[in-house]
Amino acid sequence: MTSLDAELDVVALGSAIVDVLAHADDDFIDKQGLVKGTMALIDAERAESLYAEMGPGVEVSGGAAANTMVGMASFGAAAAFVGKVRDDQLGAVFAHDIRAAGVRFDVPFAATGPATARCLVLVTPDAQRTMNTYLGAAAGLTSADVDEALIRRAAVTFLEGYLWDPPEAIDALRLAVSVAKDAGRSVAFTLSDPFCVDRHRDEFIALIESNVDLLFANEEEAKSLFKTDSLESAVEELRTMCPVVAVTRGPLGSVIASKSAVVEVVAEPVAEVVDTTGAGDLYAAGFLVGFVRGLELERCGRLGSLAAAEVISHVGARPQVSLARLAADAGLLP
Amino acid sequence: MTSLDAELDVVALGSAIVDVLAHADDDFIDKQGLVKGTMALIDAERAESLYAEMGPGVEVSGGAAANTMVGMASFGAAAAFVGKVRDDQLGAVFAHDIRAAGVRFDVPFAATGPATARCLVLVTPDAQRTMNTYLGAAAGLTSADVDEALIRRAAVTFLEGYLWDPPEAIDALRLAVSVAKDAGRSVAFTLSDPFCVDRHRDEFIALIESNVDLLFANEEEAKSLFKTDSLESAVEELRTMCPVVAVTRGPLGSVIASKSAVVEVVAEPVAEVVDTTGAGDLYAAGFLVGFVRGLELERCGRLGSLAAAEVISHVGARPQVSLARLAADAGLLP
Repeated sequence: MTSLDAELDVVALGSAIVDVLAHADDDFIDKQGLVKGTMALIDAERAESLYAEMGPGVEVSGGAAANTMVGMASFGAAAAFVGKVRDDQLGAVFAHDIRAAGVRFDVPFAATGPATARCLVLVTPDAQRTMNTYLGAAAGLTSADVDEALIRRAAVTFLEGYLWDPPEAIDALRLAVSVAKDAGRSVAFTLSDPFCVDRHRDEFIALIESNVDLLFANEEEAKSLFKTDSLESAVEELRTMCPVVAVTRGPLGSVIASKSAVVEVVAEPVAEVVDTTGAGDLYAAGFLVGFVRGLELERCGRLGSLAAAEVISHVGARPQVSLARLAADAGLLP
Repeated sequence: MTSLDAELDVVALGSAIVDVLAHADDDFIDKQGLVKGTMALIDAERAESLYAEMGPGVEVSGGAAANTMVGMASFGAAAAFVGKVRDDQLGAVFAHDIRAAGVRFDVPFAATGPATARCLVLVTPDAQRTMNTYLGAAAGLTSADVDEALIRRAAVTFLEGYLWDPPEAIDALRLAVSVAKDAGRSVAFTLSDPFCVDRHRDEFIALIESNVDLLFANEEEAKSLFKTDSLESAVEELRTMCPVVAVTRGPLGSVIASKSAVVEVVAEPVAEVVDTTGAGDLYAAGFLVGFVRGLELERCGRLGSLAAAEVISHVGARPQVSLARLAADAGLLP
């Protein structure tokens, strides 16, 4: 932990996305050839045609790492976000929402090129979400957008695996990692999605081994990384590569592994699971809040479970109540 | 009723608006100088500055008359909407959502001029909504946008009072009324908002006396029309001017008056009132579904109460479940 002299708790690099949420039945998912519970990248044309087939939607700001930053701000942490939107209406929506949530967001809007990214999210009756992302302007993040002073000032630099998809963004990621490491800061990383892991397995493993201090994954992603069916062996492998690993397991809670210990944390009970969108993003938010404060791993995990439970109890991937207050009520934070 | 030979149940003229919903406390309403529970028109500059002060939002298609059409489609009625958006992202959202809800919407998008209308809706902890509307492209509705054949084919032409605010739209409204009347169809009208009534009192009274077959108002609007504190005297006055009048009274239900009778209908009980946005719009939807089917006034009112109860039990002004199914379950429709 190197947070004591940092002015900022966390800065995240990620895709700046507006979600378009609509209800859909399993039939629709099948007919559209989608794989439930995963994220698929789509081009502009497919985004048009899928949108035309979808039911009425609700637009809410999203993006995995952006959701995590909003969650951390809700806990009272000082958070910033680096990602790219266009100077269009959805770009204005994204920028407004993340700033209104208390997250610093200063990246200049693209004045030309593709539109602000959107993710067509289909929520099925089982509360699962199936995501179809048109990256648009988000793919245009470059190293020029990385404010090195901002990275140096943050205790943790948080990266989402999704950002490896647009080839142009890799320079931005590499710069951020190198600046953070040179400044003696921590790097946290989330694997994002099993198919995303499949697309970038070797790069992800190389990054984790060399530079990642804290890794987030869900069970499928962790297994995908090592092409194994055994979560236990994936976790054992990860422990040798990275100081702290937190693997989420949905209703089964999470497993946190460091060199010296493995801790299992139960999931926070939820009266009704309405929409699982953002569960992993908010788990990371809670965990990171504990991590930058130097709390023990079990408490980090419980903060993650608390935030995830809030976000799956309603539609949308950002908290609707103060997570700082929830954490205080639960005795997890002062 | 002249619905038997109509190919369409209803066509509405109204403002095509995307709502931006955010939670706000009473303090915020006071500091911004807003009047809780009402709609204020704002210009582009004020829309920018108020948006900048608001918390994170959710974008959902809205517009009072458009919400009513979506409600009618959810009941299984054949509905069309006439209103103006620009060819921008929010315009595409509006068009997608209303079509995906089953409402016919064929008005060409404006290629120049102001952006698609948006309404900044502040939802306070008491579930009240305070609306701030930037009319933008919606004010550009003209008589060229009125498809006369569509009006002639619809049993009812439904008009919202809000459309009297943009001066250019008046020709479109006049044309629609005259085509509907010449075709022997019914005209329904909603007063929209007490301040809107204040801005257009004389025109509204003239319209009601000469051409309106079915009038919707809430208690404040009905009283505002005659500058009276007595709902009873307002209803008595309205009975002399118009064949059927339906006045909504929030939790007190509604009063329906015709030349020959006054019927009181109770409000449908709701477990928790979450957001009253759209209550009046959906009451009108349910009532109109009964009206075009020639049902007795009490049943029309009960259909209105049913639809209003659904929409106030969640955030947003459009139904989240099939109103046809709700009505069938309640024994109100076959």
